[in-house]
Amino acid sequence: MRVAVVGVGLIGGSIGLAARERLGATVTGWDPDAGALEQAVGRGAIDAAAPSLAEAVQDAQIAFVAAPVGALPALVREVLDAAPRECMVTDVGSTKRAVVVDDERFCGGHPLAGAEHAGVEHARADLFEGAIWYLTPGPRTSGILFERLHRTIAALGAQPVAIDAETHDRLMATVSHLPHVIANVLVAQAAGALGGERVPPTGPSFRDATRVAGANSAIWTDIYLANRDALIEQIDATIERLQDVRAALAAADAEAVKAWNEAAAADRRALLEAGLEGGAVHELRASVPNRPGVIAEIALALGRAGVNIVDMALSPSADFRQGRMSLWISGDDQASRAVELISDLGFPVARA
Amino acid sequence: MRVAVVGVGLIGGSIGLAARERLGATVTGWDPDAGALEQAVGRGAIDAAAPSLAEAVQDAQIAFVAAPVGALPALVREVLDAAPRECMVTDVGSTKRAVVVDDERFCGGHPLAGAEHAGVEHARADLFEGAIWYLTPGPRTSGILFERLHRTIAALGAQPVAIDAETHDRLMATVSHLPHVIANVLVAQAAGALGGERVPPTGPSFRDATRVAGANSAIWTDIYLANRDALIEQIDATIERLQDVRAALAAADAEAVKAWNEAAAADRRALLEAGLEGGAVHELRASVPNRPGVIAEIALALGRAGVNIVDMALSPSADFRQGRMSLWISGDDQASRAVELISDLGFPVARA
Repeated sequence: MRVAVVGVGLIGGSIGLAARERLGATVTGWDPDAGALEQAVGRGAIDAAAPSLAEAVQDAQIAFVAAPVGALPALVREVLDAAPRECMVTDVGSTKRAVVVDDERFCGGHPLAGAEHAGVEHARADLFEGAIWYLTPGPRTSGILFERLHRTIAALGAQPVAIDAETHDRLMATVSHLPHVIANVLVAQAAGALGGERVPPTGPSFRDATRVAGANSAIWTDIYLANRDALIEQIDATIERLQDVRAALAAADAEAVKAWNEAAAADRRALLEAGLEGGAVHELRASVPNRPGVIAEIALALGRAGVNIVDMALSPSADFRQGRMSLWISGDDQASRAVELISDLGFPVARA
Repeated sequence: MRVAVVGVGLIGGSIGLAARERLGATVTGWDPDAGALEQAVGRGAIDAAAPSLAEAVQDAQIAFVAAPVGALPALVREVLDAAPRECMVTDVGSTKRAVVVDDERFCGGHPLAGAEHAGVEHARADLFEGAIWYLTPGPRTSGILFERLHRTIAALGAQPVAIDAETHDRLMATVSHLPHVIANVLVAQAAGALGGERVPPTGPSFRDATRVAGANSAIWTDIYLANRDALIEQIDATIERLQDVRAALAAADAEAVKAWNEAAAADRRALLEAGLEGGAVHELRASVPNRPGVIAEIALALGRAGVNIVDMALSPSADFRQGRMSLWISGDDQASRAVELISDLGFPVARA
């Protein structure tokens, strides 16, 4: 496997380390920062530093573009122009609508992995172990190339989950960008309220809620702006909910405060349960027409229903008009649900 | 040492376990719930179960009242009526203005310790290890009894910090009650936004920020209501800050978003540094008049300035009109600051 990594920071460097160590891949890297590139070679994150972006990707089977969100659209375009016809190009940006590209070789990606410190010096081969790695295939994304990406990401240790770019960005606004905004607000408020008093701002709830306050501005300014419409919706909804509880407090309405708190307990339980998975792995086999978008359609339908695809394999028929798709799904209920969903899409499917 | 514990749940039970194990105290307990009381004896959290509140406290040197905030004012009154003249009575409620009692035997308290599960079955002797334990002495609180409480709490493994009730409640609104409200809002919003989709709500920032969502309603409804004025102020300020960042996002103002994020990073650093302490322990000796309120006055002045009193000892002079107070302060700068503050209050003081 020949992998190209464009941008060798924490994420790009960790992809390189994991691909070399776990896949035995040959990794070529490029970075606008020559020092970072040199460091990546020194750390063994890449086999070779390419003298240009085009040379980095010219022989690649998969190219990962790992740059701040603001730089991604132009960089992905440049990589697609230089990459071969059979190369899968993906990015690792935290917002996905910003990088929608109408090319069968492209599929957006977003690993939910990071570390407190940026830079290739903090890269680790196990950074993606067990992490969700969202994939946002477009309607034209090639099934064969999507399968290659899916398997590669699983081999890096992550759990690939297909999702459409809209849903991804709304989800991230809710479970990541809003909590970051709130963390910033909480520290600002505490610093203001406690100013000069030097009272230790203890309380585990505060520490937990503010761990991500003031996260790397070089990365987060872009993220906030790229997803600002979804984030603004979340902020507005937060303000509304705060006004509701404020009203209950102002009225000293114990019943309302209690009901609101119990509802939050129920919501938390539901969210925790939604995150659960597990069970034996079942193999499903489906027959699918060999046209663009089919694989993405299936992956998205399953992703939307919370059905995790542990692994997948495609085998085209001799005439290339029909293909067989194998899917490995974890959990009995999830496997049944997958059969149902794939049938609903009109494709013959059965457990192997 | 004879200790009474009124209310043998998680906190009361842990006080009993720690007092028996670390102080060799004899602990008598009482609880309106006979089952909990029996369980407390079974777990060794108390030596004996008293048949009534009055009998539990009748011989005590310190009585801890550990009940939900709403029940505290009446219960503390009842304990003071039954306790001997030389008994220190304290509570462990999370808001302190609700239990201001004009009695020289009373001092409010609040250990910043807890666990996910309530009940004496989760009590632990090390629950308070390293925890801040706020003390809110009133103007009439006896110096001798305050010293006893301070030393007992340090012996339980906690770090006593004197603070006035107003500041305590404002501080808690900022670093505890507001983060709890926010956690509830975040889970409600995520549950609403993700409803039906079963997309795994991962993202460590979300998990961290929502760990306390829907905390025990029996306890938290009281806390929210008892501190509602301070909490409403915090909610209003939060809404205002959210509106500011919303405006910057709506205007796609990258400079403003970046500046806001950098300010949060600086605030977080400042708060972390304010929480630091350490250094060698210095002994200070002060001469203080033997009148009510003096010890509280000194403890509060030091607490306000972030000077931690590691230990203290009082020795009255022969005629009981003057006393010598020894204070152990950790850190060279803090010791100097303490000398300054005590001098400013008009009391002779020097390093030993």
